[in-house]
Amino acid sequence: MEPLILRQDQGHVARLVLNSPANYNALSLEMIDALTAAFQKIAGDDHIHAVILAANGKAFSAGHDLRQMQSGRADADGGRAKFEDLFGRCAQMMQMIPALPQPVIAEVQGIATAAGCQLVASCDLAVASEGLRFGVNGVNIGLFCSTPMVALSRAIPTKAAFEMLTTGDFILSDRALQLGLLNRVVPANQLSAATMALAQQIASKLPAAVRMGKRAFYEQLNQGLGPAYQTGGAAICENIMLPDTDEGIAAFLEKRPPSWADR
Amino acid sequence: MEPLILRQDQGHVARLVLNSPANYNALSLEMIDALTAAFQKIAGDDHIHAVILAANGKAFSAGHDLRQMQSGRADADGGRAKFEDLFGRCAQMMQMIPALPQPVIAEVQGIATAAGCQLVASCDLAVASEGLRFGVNGVNIGLFCSTPMVALSRAIPTKAAFEMLTTGDFILSDRALQLGLLNRVVPANQLSAATMALAQQIASKLPAAVRMGKRAFYEQLNQGLGPAYQTGGAAICENIMLPDTDEGIAAFLEKRPPSWADR
Amino acid sequence: MEPLILRQDQGHVARLVLNSPANYNALSLEMIDALTAAFQKIAGDDHIHAVILAANGKAFSAGHDLRQMQSGRADADGGRAKFEDLFGRCAQMMQMIPALPQPVIAEVQGIATAAGCQLVASCDLAVASEGLRFGVNGVNIGLFCSTPMVALSRAIPTKAAFEMLTTGDFILSDRALQLGLLNRVVPANQLSAATMALAQQIASKLPAAVRMGKRAFYEQLNQGLGPAYQTGGAAICENIMLPDTDEGIAAFLEKRPPSWADR
Repeated sequence: MEPLILRQDQGHVARLVLNSPANYNALSLEMIDALTAAFQKIAGDDHIHAVILAANGKAFSAGHDLRQMQSGRADADGGRAKFEDLFGRCAQMMQMIPALPQPVIAEVQGIATAAGCQLVASCDLAVASEGLRFGVNGVNIGLFCSTPMVALSRAIPTKAAFEMLTTGDFILSDRALQLGLLNRVVPANQLSAATMALAQQIASKLPAAVRMGKRAFYEQLNQGLGPAYQTGGAAICENIMLPDTDEGIAAFLEKRPPSWADR
Repeated sequence: MEPLILRQDQGHVARLVLNSPANYNALSLEMIDALTAAFQKIAGDDHIHAVILAANGKAFSAGHDLRQMQSGRADADGGRAKFEDLFGRCAQMMQMIPALPQPVIAEVQGIATAAGCQLVASCDLAVASEGLRFGVNGVNIGLFCSTPMVALSRAIPTKAAFEMLTTGDFILSDRALQLGLLNRVVPANQLSAATMALAQQIASKLPAAVRMGKRAFYEQLNQGLGPAYQTGGAAICENIMLPDTDEGIAAFLEKRPPSWADR
Repeated sequence: MEPLILRQDQGHVARLVLNSPANYNALSLEMIDALTAAFQKIAGDDHIHAVILAANGKAFSAGHDLRQMQSGRADADGGRAKFEDLFGRCAQMMQMIPALPQPVIAEVQGIATAAGCQLVASCDLAVASEGLRFGVNGVNIGLFCSTPMVALSRAIPTKAAFEMLTTGDFILSDRALQLGLLNRVVPANQLSAATMALAQQIASKLPAAVRMGKRAFYEQLNQGLGPAYQTGGAAICENIMLPDTDEGIAAFLEKRPPSWADR
């Protein structure tokens, strides 16, 4: 049996590949647990400086595994305990992405719907092929995408998010780029190379600086201006005390490449 | 005497029409109270699944009724009590829109200024004719649009909102769409049909799912990521326990249309 | 020796010009203090109704003065106290801009990087020449732009901000406009005139109304909807009680220009 997630490292970049094309990379309990485990492993791996989240098959991910979900209905509580466990575990996994020390880039090769679209929105950055469809279309089957909306409504304007959630309509890659759900749209045959180039670019920076910066980024996002500057100020003071940053600035002033220990 | 607001239902869609074209559908106390009453009635009407807010005449709404406002100046307190009452009642009415169980779509057929622009921004969704003007131009007469800005600055980027508020300049439909104030721009002769089609599309979804989703949408918007996932998670767990949602998912898996009780 | 900042007033508009082209208008301690002093002076000057922040030379500002920063490293604490003082003072200065009673418009004639880009993002409004480069590229030398990100992530969409911060890549004027970092992009030879016209337009409004509105704008931005309406409601009630606003509304109703005392 194939593993649910493949990991293909290239230098300091970990590339995770959702590998359940038969069910459109559904976010089953097993897939959620596999992602959680993969993120946990990467979180503690100083060798990894950037992460790509890619997928095999026609879909990036079609969201939750509906068949698995329905199987809980026969329980005495109608499935409630299992649903709470599932959505709780899924939300924990999604929140691991901004909490991960390394930037995570979605490499979107196929349709992304419901929790699959949430996965794209949850990544720090997202690159996608042209002409793909993105949707939070649970409302079409009577299940409003109330957890995907958390990530989506933090990535795109309010009225656009509300429209996608209540109509169930898809948007295409270009519109997703314009709205802020994606960072870049490229031809399908350049997707993997473009995403890897972006990941390698980020991985070439001083990892400790990126780590401190990413943590402060999300911490300050929801704060008022004063507290946000406290957060950002603490991060940049910590950052500048790094010997490697001393060297980075010195090298810049001397117009030579830096010689960093942590690389 | 014509009523200030006409109500024209079509199936499960309630279409409210501002009907005071002679004063450009000014948000007089009477109009604010009429809107409040109309929203209250709809809030408790399970038969209604979506709401359209349209207008008769050349303007969608030109904002507050300045003549009526000025009439309070002769009071002993210079009008302060009346102004506080007016702006308080207006803010309550505006906040009823996101609080309403049903999605509300602005159907904008003419200019929308000051509190009229706020009304568009306050609706969950907005469709407008091509080439219309939108502005928060109170600053031109010495009254900064400090209440319209609450809704506007939650719909469009910060610097764009600040520019509109301090210059009093108008933006046209296309720019309003690009900024996020509108969801769709259509030719004038297709406006009503396009808006009704959107409303009917939303009204065709499971109403309880949309209701739970809309409530959670606004609740989580201003929360931090963790609390937002608590909000969204509670909503989706409640939603999935609905028998109609069980049926919706089952029908999808069996590739047949759902047979919903609540429709 | 030339002053670090020139001040060129035109009517009710104060135009501050960063005047250290030799070091690309670096935000040295001296420059930060000069800006702080200039803002403090303007804050108490009722004659000034709008502010332009411009710059001499090829760069608008290239951010902190790296050479000056490095000089602290020889201290017993490795420079920590000096760094904390520098970033603290800089953050205070940046926060003076939204706190200033008058709107502040960046007039961007050249490249804006790191804290220089933060300065653009911190201004209430920004006009720039075509084809300029904007970046928060400290990450390239090992110093993540954790303070610039506070202003940047409040002006543009989240994923776009994260990309700029972690890649160190530049964006050009048109993209900066599209993302919301800029309000207008004009040909270089029209920059000063276009910015002054915008400033004069704002300066022609009732100053007290703009002052109340600007203060309420930033106060309500991070609040929930209810508290935000409290803030906006208090501001508009205060505003409408001004005799000049009474006159402004009366003049509008009588179709004549207002005769304002405070002009």
